[in-house]
Amino acid sequence: MGAPVNREIHLASRPHGWPTEENFRLVETEVPKPGPGQLLVRNRYMSVDPYMRGRMDDVKSYAPPFRLDAPLDGGAVGEVVASEADGFAPGDVVLHGLGWREYALVEARSARIVDPDLAPVTTYLHVLGMTGLTAYAGLLDVAGMRPGETVFVSAAAGAVGSLVGQIAKLRGAARVIGSAGSPAKVARLAALGFDAAFDYHDGPVRESLKAAAPDGIDVYFDNVGGDHLEAALSAMRTHGRVAVCGMIAQYNDTAPPAAPRNLSLVIGKRLTLRGFLVGDHEALRGEFVREMSGWLREGRVSYDETVVDGIENAPAAFLGLLRGENLGKMLVRL
Amino acid sequence: MGAPVNREIHLASRPHGWPTEENFRLVETEVPKPGPGQLLVRNRYMSVDPYMRGRMDDVKSYAPPFRLDAPLDGGAVGEVVASEADGFAPGDVVLHGLGWREYALVEARSARIVDPDLAPVTTYLHVLGMTGLTAYAGLLDVAGMRPGETVFVSAAAGAVGSLVGQIAKLRGAARVIGSAGSPAKVARLAALGFDAAFDYHDGPVRESLKAAAPDGIDVYFDNVGGDHLEAALSAMRTHGRVAVCGMIAQYNDTAPPAAPRNLSLVIGKRLTLRGFLVGDHEALRGEFVREMSGWLREGRVSYDETVVDGIENAPAAFLGLLRGENLGKMLVRL
Repeated sequence: MGAPVNREIHLASRPHGWPTEENFRLVETEVPKPGPGQLLVRNRYMSVDPYMRGRMDDVKSYAPPFRLDAPLDGGAVGEVVASEADGFAPGDVVLHGLGWREYALVEARSARIVDPDLAPVTTYLHVLGMTGLTAYAGLLDVAGMRPGETVFVSAAAGAVGSLVGQIAKLRGAARVIGSAGSPAKVARLAALGFDAAFDYHDGPVRESLKAAAPDGIDVYFDNVGGDHLEAALSAMRTHGRVAVCGMIAQYNDTAPPAAPRNLSLVIGKRLTLRGFLVGDHEALRGEFVREMSGWLREGRVSYDETVVDGIENAPAAFLGLLRGENLGKMLVRL
Repeated sequence: MGAPVNREIHLASRPHGWPTEENFRLVETEVPKPGPGQLLVRNRYMSVDPYMRGRMDDVKSYAPPFRLDAPLDGGAVGEVVASEADGFAPGDVVLHGLGWREYALVEARSARIVDPDLAPVTTYLHVLGMTGLTAYAGLLDVAGMRPGETVFVSAAAGAVGSLVGQIAKLRGAARVIGSAGSPAKVARLAALGFDAAFDYHDGPVRESLKAAAPDGIDVYFDNVGGDHLEAALSAMRTHGRVAVCGMIAQYNDTAPPAAPRNLSLVIGKRLTLRGFLVGDHEALRGEFVREMSGWLREGRVSYDETVVDGIENAPAAFLGLLRGENLGKMLVRL
C-alpha cells in the first residue's frame, strides 16, 4: 500500500471569455508533511466564489492572479491531521485559505480554529465568514442604509445577495427588492422575506425594477453591473447610494461593457457610487459576528447551500456558479 | 420720448442636440414697475453657465426647465433703480437670479446687496459666488481632498476648474493636473500654478493623463464626463474619489454616451464617485467666503473673465461657453 494520495486542481490555461473545464487540471501529488509552524489539513469543504474568475486572468488586480500549473486557492475548512504548531492539535477544525486540494499544508498563523458545535462548519465559509461580512459591511457601512429606506440587490438568491436582503429587513428597511435568474430563485426570495423580486430574464431590468419599486430606491447593492446598474441609477431617489460589490455580468466579457449610459444622473440626484472589498472592513467583524450569530440562533436569518461532491467536480461547481446555477452559497465537499 | 424699453431673451424653441441662435429670441417689453416687496433692477452683468443647457430641454431635472416664449433666468448683478422694499434703496448693487434681461423685477427677499468696494461686482457671479462655492465644496467636501494628494480637474481653464486647481494647491495638494481645450488655456494653467496641464485634443486623454500623473491620482473633479472620466478611473489610486460636478462633453449628445467602459475598476480600487449640486452645500458658504476673500486679498487666487457686451449677444456668449470659447468665467455685460 503506497502513501496516501492528494488530489488538487491546477490552472492549466487562462480563459479568454468564459472559462471551461479545459482551463483546469486534476493533479495527483503526495500528501505533504508539515514543517515547523505548519499544519496538515484534510479539507472537508471549499468555497468557489465569483471573484476567482478575475484571478484566472494574468492581470494585476486586488487579488493576485492564480499561477499556471499550480493549485488554485481560496477559502476552505478542514480537519487538522498533523500539527507542528502550538495551539493546534489533530482533530481541530480550521478555516484557512488553501482550498482546491484535498490535503493542504497550512501555515498555522493563517489558520483559525472554528467551533463545529457552535454552527455548522460550512457557515464559516459564508454566512458567518467573508460572505456575510461582505453583505453586512457593504449594506450598512459602504451604502450606509438607514431604517425606512428602500433597498435593491441583484444576484439576490446568491450567497451575498440573500444576506443583503435579510440584513436590510432586520435593520429596518421599508422595502427590499431582489433580482434573480430563475422562477425558483424568485420564489425563494419571497420565502426569505423580500418584499418584491423579479426574474431578470422576464423583461428589461429597468421596467421590472420600476414595477417593483414605483417610488424609487435609496440603496442598490450591486453584484452584477451592466443593465442592473443602469436600471438602479434610473430608479434612484435623491441622495441614493450604490455599493459596488461585483459586476459578475461582465466578468467573462471580452469587450469592455458600455453600460451604464445614464451615469450623469449622479449629478442631479446627488448619488454616490462606491466600490469596496471586504478586506477593508475588518473593523466591523466583531460587531458582525455578534449580530449575525444572534440572528442565526433566533432563526431570523436563513441561508441556502448548493453542495457539489468531489474535488474532481470543483471546476464544474465554479463554472456553474458563474452561470448562476447555485441557490445560496456554492460549496464543494471534499 | 416714450417709456424706457426693456430687452430680454426668450426661449423660442427647444434644441435637439447642440443649441443654435434660432432657439433664442430677443424681445422688447416695457420696463415694469415694482409692486410691494419688489425692486426694479437695471442689470449690469449676467452669468451664462453650462447647467443652463439642461434647462433648455423639457425634462424634469434638478433645475426646472426654461419655459418656451418666456425669458430665461440665471445669476445677475445690477443696480436698484426703484425699490418698494425695506432695506433696499436706489443705487444699491444686488445679486439675484433674474438675468437674461436688461431690467428685472426682483422680489426683495431673493436679492442680496453686495459691496462693490469690497470686490469687483462681477466676482459675486463667480469666484465669490456659486462658482467658487462649487469648486470649494466639490473639492474639499465631496471629494474630501487631503494635503499631499494628487488632483486632476477637467475643463480646468473654466470658471470652476481654474478655482479647483488653485484651491487644491492652497490646501496642500502635492500635484495638480488640469486638462483644457487649447494651447492658450494650457499655458494659462501653468501661470495659475497647476503642476501639469494638457490639451485634450493632443491625444487620448488616458495617455495624456498617464504622462502627467505617472504615479496616479487621488481625486478627480469631473466637469466633462466621457473619456475624461474613463481616463481618470484608469489613473485612480486605491481609495480615490471622483466629485462629479458636470458632464459638459455630453450635454448636447442625442444618443446616450457609452463611457466609462472601465467602471468596474471602482471595486478593486475601492473608488467613490459622487455627484453633487452646490445647493446642498450652503452650510460651507460662510467658511468659503472667509477663506476665498482672504486668498483674493492676498493675491493668492487669480481668475479670468471673458466678457461679451450686450443682451443681444447673450445667446452667442452661451453657445460659445458650450464650445469652450471662454477663459475663466463667461459673462455678459448689459
